[in-house]
Amino acid sequence: MRRTAGEIAKAVGAHVVGDERAEINGVASIASAQSGDLVFVEDEKHFDSALRSKAAAVIAGSFAAQAQSRKPLIVSAHPRLAFAQAAKLLSESHERKPEIHSSAVVLPSAVVAETAVIDPWTFVGEKATVGERTWIGAGCVVGSGVVIGEDCKIYPRVIVYPGTRIGDRAIVHAGAVLGADGFGYVRNRPSADRTGEGARPHPAIAYEKFPQIGTLVIEEDVEIGANTTIDRGALETTRIGRGTKIDNLVHIGHNCQIGENVIIAAQAGFSGSIVIEDNVVIGGQVGVGEHARIQEGVLLGGQAGVLPKKVLRGKGVAFWGTPAKPLREYLQSLAALARLGRKD
Amino acid sequence: MRRTAGEIAKAVGAHVVGDERAEINGVASIASAQSGDLVFVEDEKHFDSALRSKAAAVIAGSFAAQAQSRKPLIVSAHPRLAFAQAAKLLSESHERKPEIHSSAVVLPSAVVAETAVIDPWTFVGEKATVGERTWIGAGCVVGSGVVIGEDCKIYPRVIVYPGTRIGDRAIVHAGAVLGADGFGYVRNRPSADRTGEGARPHPAIAYEKFPQIGTLVIEEDVEIGANTTIDRGALETTRIGRGTKIDNLVHIGHNCQIGENVIIAAQAGFSGSIVIEDNVVIGGQVGVGEHARIQEGVLLGGQAGVLPKKVLRGKGVAFWGTPAKPLREYLQSLAALARLGRKD
Amino acid sequence: MRRTAGEIAKAVGAHVVGDERAEINGVASIASAQSGDLVFVEDEKHFDSALRSKAAAVIAGSFAAQAQSRKPLIVSAHPRLAFAQAAKLLSESHERKPEIHSSAVVLPSAVVAETAVIDPWTFVGEKATVGERTWIGAGCVVGSGVVIGEDCKIYPRVIVYPGTRIGDRAIVHAGAVLGADGFGYVRNRPSADRTGEGARPHPAIAYEKFPQIGTLVIEEDVEIGANTTIDRGALETTRIGRGTKIDNLVHIGHNCQIGENVIIAAQAGFSGSIVIEDNVVIGGQVGVGEHARIQEGVLLGGQAGVLPKKVLRGKGVAFWGTPAKPLREYLQSLAALARLGRKD
Repeated sequence: MRRTAGEIAKAVGAHVVGDERAEINGVASIASAQSGDLVFVEDEKHFDSALRSKAAAVIAGSFAAQAQSRKPLIVSAHPRLAFAQAAKLLSESHERKPEIHSSAVVLPSAVVAETAVIDPWTFVGEKATVGERTWIGAGCVVGSGVVIGEDCKIYPRVIVYPGTRIGDRAIVHAGAVLGADGFGYVRNRPSADRTGEGARPHPAIAYEKFPQIGTLVIEEDVEIGANTTIDRGALETTRIGRGTKIDNLVHIGHNCQIGENVIIAAQAGFSGSIVIEDNVVIGGQVGVGEHARIQEGVLLGGQAGVLPKKVLRGKGVAFWGTPAKPLREYLQSLAALARLGRKD
Repeated sequence: MRRTAGEIAKAVGAHVVGDERAEINGVASIASAQSGDLVFVEDEKHFDSALRSKAAAVIAGSFAAQAQSRKPLIVSAHPRLAFAQAAKLLSESHERKPEIHSSAVVLPSAVVAETAVIDPWTFVGEKATVGERTWIGAGCVVGSGVVIGEDCKIYPRVIVYPGTRIGDRAIVHAGAVLGADGFGYVRNRPSADRTGEGARPHPAIAYEKFPQIGTLVIEEDVEIGANTTIDRGALETTRIGRGTKIDNLVHIGHNCQIGENVIIAAQAGFSGSIVIEDNVVIGGQVGVGEHARIQEGVLLGGQAGVLPKKVLRGKGVAFWGTPAKPLREYLQSLAALARLGRKD
Repeated sequence: MRRTAGEIAKAVGAHVVGDERAEINGVASIASAQSGDLVFVEDEKHFDSALRSKAAAVIAGSFAAQAQSRKPLIVSAHPRLAFAQAAKLLSESHERKPEIHSSAVVLPSAVVAETAVIDPWTFVGEKATVGERTWIGAGCVVGSGVVIGEDCKIYPRVIVYPGTRIGDRAIVHAGAVLGADGFGYVRNRPSADRTGEGARPHPAIAYEKFPQIGTLVIEEDVEIGANTTIDRGALETTRIGRGTKIDNLVHIGHNCQIGENVIIAAQAGFSGSIVIEDNVVIGGQVGVGEHARIQEGVLLGGQAGVLPKKVLRGKGVAFWGTPAKPLREYLQSLAALARLGRKD
């Protein structure tokens, strides 16, 4: 949607230096900007190139409040944030017309909102519901009883197992699998227990599947990356708190409780029954053992490992390594080890 | 399927204290149990809440043999196992009627059993066979010559490359890719070898694909997690032994030989030509280098790394860290390192 | 395609000892070879079994130049490479007839070459182009504006987000997701910035999505493994250089620049804005932090971790561990640590 510099400034809490009526229809980097684009600079270093670019307007930090420029400037104390908010505003134009593609299969008991878009070869199961303005891409499977909220974007080939609930404004990228069975088994016992005919210590099939019949609840404003997998609870509920952002190829096991506004980078993995409190930041390839708890505001560095049942605490405290230790302690160990290696 | 407490007790090798005719139609946790549900307790701690729940009956450990209860008790030496077995029994009711959906494409030379279910947009290739009572979810691709056994559950969007064989009672979760090409290349040589016209040390394309034309065999009673990938052999066969359970996002490379009743947690990865013997347990995010061998009954802790060609041995011995060491040795190193860090 | 021993020898720069007219129609391992198959041996150790196999001909190293054999021998200084090249030559027979399956949806503005094959339930979006002889498997989604080159093999269920470009002869395995949004957010500020009504330090939704509107360019001769994910740039371009080979379940974040002829083993992960120069080899489960640079020809051992902004250099130098160190240094640390553990 086309907006003026003035409209954008107002929406993002900034003010315009220059022509408020300048028209903007997209965002870009300084290098790739075309006429009509909006760019941003956080510091004076790139300000000149921004002014020389083809962009229609520039979001800039407070340093630019007094600057001389033929381009309109949108001056904000937080230019990166203002840029992100402007981009969101401008992308609102790209909504598609409501449609259920003729090749989709929507069971009669399912309820799809009139403003929703369902792309080809998508299945919507028994009693599932799809909210207003939600888009479901090609080849998705929405299992029976699934609830998908309003204004969601479900990219192609997302599989949602029966009973899963997805809140408003969720974004789920291609290939994600939501609500699959958790990984839980019970070791078989010698048949003596059953028949009294003598123990057979190695039964042919050692593991019996523990029931995986709980659910998965994904709250509002969650984003989930491509090919990520989040399992349903075994008997209870796996929960992803609102505002939480999850990258690609992440695994979240059954019964996990992930808080609000948590950041989880790519390929991180969570065993069963883990609690991650609000505002935690998890680096790429981090692994967390079952029943561990990461308390509010903890930061876990990339590839860190947390042992089962371990509790990590400390708002803003960074943990690194396996087993994860506070950064200072981790660095001391590293330094000691390096000296030791050289000495020998 | 609805069962009586007596029928369940008989099937799982337990005995009933109370009304054997009580009807049960599902399993649940104590907190979520509704009338008709079966719950379980392993120790006395949760026994009271189980009795106070809405459940129709309680599976309990031997401690409950003399207990006073208005609810029927199913007393077992292994309540968790009995619960798992009861759940399996009760879920047998949920079988669907045989059907090949009209949008599926089944090539004329394929053989699909009369009792199988093929969901929408699934492709069954040339000379592929699908066994009795097997369900293949929406959007699967079953390549030419694939053999899928009886009573399998193949969830949506599973891709089975040509020639793969899947044994009876296998469960494959959504998005898994079975039998893709392994990762094998041969470095190109200077063209001198071919033409004698002088060496060109950096040919434009450095790697030639080594043929990946072997097969993948998955034996009976295997479960495979969502978005897991298992590659076919290069020239020979990749094999997953019967009863083995594999979690989500696991990677198994070409020519691997995985034994029977092996447990592989999420995001573990196996390079080519690895041997994992029976009853091994592999933690999450473990990485195993090519041609390594993990002998029978070894336990590998989460994030452990095994170097190429390494052999790990010892039934019941736990290995941790990278490179993986016996747990005791690993803990000694950790402790020494911690002391050293503090000293400096 | 059937070829004679002489034709193959000529194509791979080798010479025949024996009957040049022997007909060959496939490759195999020594153990599985049938009549008509070609096998190879790199050293004398397996030469006898190759001669005793059912194979029609044997590619062998220079040691076999004077050998006595009833089977024709194709003698090459690089038998493994010659075998790979022969396999490629022989597989050229398996091309399918051009076809767009009737269930596929190809938008009118898309351009699909006449010799391309489009399988069932595949979507080709607005203004997308598909090159000559390219095969697109069942259930793929080719977004609007996507360009796919000539002679590509796109396996089933690959999702290509809008605007992505894929070069000639690319192979993309099932379930890969190419060009999804990168993982970038901006922390929200207290609303004070916007309204002046006083700070609210914990806004309900902490993260605003940073625009992910760049592109992804994959050059010629790249192979991409099953369920791998490669994100588009945020504002610019993510690039995969020609000849690069990527295994299964790899993650490559936004803005990464991957060079030519790079090898990336399974489950490796790359944060945003990383530069990997030409001829780098990356082991399985390696993790690289944002803005790091791996210079030409570096080898990174399995599970190694590279910190953000770090630069690794040295053609042919192997790095191991987290944080990654040159192999010699890493081994010294390990040895020192082991001694220390034992001492205590």
